[in-house]
Amino acid sequence: MPKGIRVLVTGASGRIGIPFREAYSNYYSLRLMSHKKTLEALPGEEVISADIADLNSVTEAMNGVEAVVHLAADSKSNAPWDFILNLNIIGTYNVFEAARKVGVKKVVYASSNHACGLSVKELDLVGPDAPIRPDSLYGVSKVFGEALGRYYSDNFNLSVICLRIGYCLGPGREDPSSYIKPLFLGKRLIYTKEKLFAMWISNRDMAQLIHKSLESDLKFGIFYGISDNVHKIFDISETIEKLGYRPQDRVEYYLK
Amino acid sequence: MPKGIRVLVTGASGRIGIPFREAYSNYYSLRLMSHKKTLEALPGEEVISADIADLNSVTEAMNGVEAVVHLAADSKSNAPWDFILNLNIIGTYNVFEAARKVGVKKVVYASSNHACGLSVKELDLVGPDAPIRPDSLYGVSKVFGEALGRYYSDNFNLSVICLRIGYCLGPGREDPSSYIKPLFLGKRLIYTKEKLFAMWISNRDMAQLIHKSLESDLKFGIFYGISDNVHKIFDISETIEKLGYRPQDRVEYYLK
Repeated sequence: MPKGIRVLVTGASGRIGIPFREAYSNYYSLRLMSHKKTLEALPGEEVISADIADLNSVTEAMNGVEAVVHLAADSKSNAPWDFILNLNIIGTYNVFEAARKVGVKKVVYASSNHACGLSVKELDLVGPDAPIRPDSLYGVSKVFGEALGRYYSDNFNLSVICLRIGYCLGPGREDPSSYIKPLFLGKRLIYTKEKLFAMWISNRDMAQLIHKSLESDLKFGIFYGISDNVHKIFDISETIEKLGYRPQDRVEYYLK
Repeated sequence: MPKGIRVLVTGASGRIGIPFREAYSNYYSLRLMSHKKTLEALPGEEVISADIADLNSVTEAMNGVEAVVHLAADSKSNAPWDFILNLNIIGTYNVFEAARKVGVKKVVYASSNHACGLSVKELDLVGPDAPIRPDSLYGVSKVFGEALGRYYSDNFNLSVICLRIGYCLGPGREDPSSYIKPLFLGKRLIYTKEKLFAMWISNRDMAQLIHKSLESDLKFGIFYGISDNVHKIFDISETIEKLGYRPQDRVEYYLK
């Protein structure tokens, strides 16, 4: 997708939306969608409010848009079903269906490592072809979103890139060593601190990865997204090869 | 699971529920759940009415049950989203969540070949590890159900067998050559008549496959289910090897 195209960003005020906006506000014509009322448009931007759980609202928000970066979700890995259902499942259906109706050409979908979170216990390196093993209802919802993306890309004139994002801390939290703690869901340990370091992705690498996904000519793909960490548990060789992703950061730089 | 255990069958009055009931009514203690009011209990059976889209209703229906055969769904491959959402997505969540709450030991889940329907165009033989390529929202909902089943089996004391059922015609339609027509979704040809023959599963093979799934000690598995057709497009070698399925029928017997 060329420079200057109009891109709708859902979840624009979230951990991933903010760094992407900061890095590419001048490159794309961004339409920022958020449930928060606090966003203010910078020159060249639009800010809109829409209900992700309402198809008409989402369709209206997509009017005149060439590409969508779909980040809106309940992103807590322990989110309860009602939120998962409304935001992640119904919301993601609404995004793809609105994209089809409006004639959007590309959707970049924020999937998650949690789609195969439990494969991490069994494999040294988990790639896009690892068995589906969600560690949470959140992870299940991301498998659903990937399958839905595949369906829309196969059957309609829509390119879909699904990013299984590692661990992006968001704005103001550049140094992972200060913020990363082991991840529990209830009493279950999902990821140790070491594994979370290995799946860290810096804010600027995250922004670049979305940009590369927007630029890609692929009809469909599922790609892991982490920084160029020395110790990796997710395989980004296809992300580098097929999307042209060039990570600039490395978690070990922050670790003593 | 041993003979005589109490098994809840959702969708008991459907194409798959009826043959399973006929074959195993005397083997298991069946609790038949259906939205239709026309079912009547035979000796040793119970018939209940419950709303698959309501968690409390489903939980109540599962009281005292050791295993669940979850067949209830909108089974039309062109079903619209509202039905898919309520029956297949919310309904399937309700079944797994109720099973966890009640302490059910086993869920046999009716998945579908449509989860990977479009892989059929690219591969000669599609097995459980083929790329996820749903041909419909119906297929997407079945991918969701499999992922949910994996999550529940990995994290709770629940064994889950997902059956990617081929094409089961249901009661009164024994001869596939009389009933099979090419499958279109809208204008898109999904399966030719030849492919539908190749994925046929007889009523008694279908019933046996559910029975073998109930008997299995596996914690989780995804298996294709077709009869012993000479020309196959789905791989049932693991179904035979790991579930002990022994198909007795063959589509070619009916084809001149």
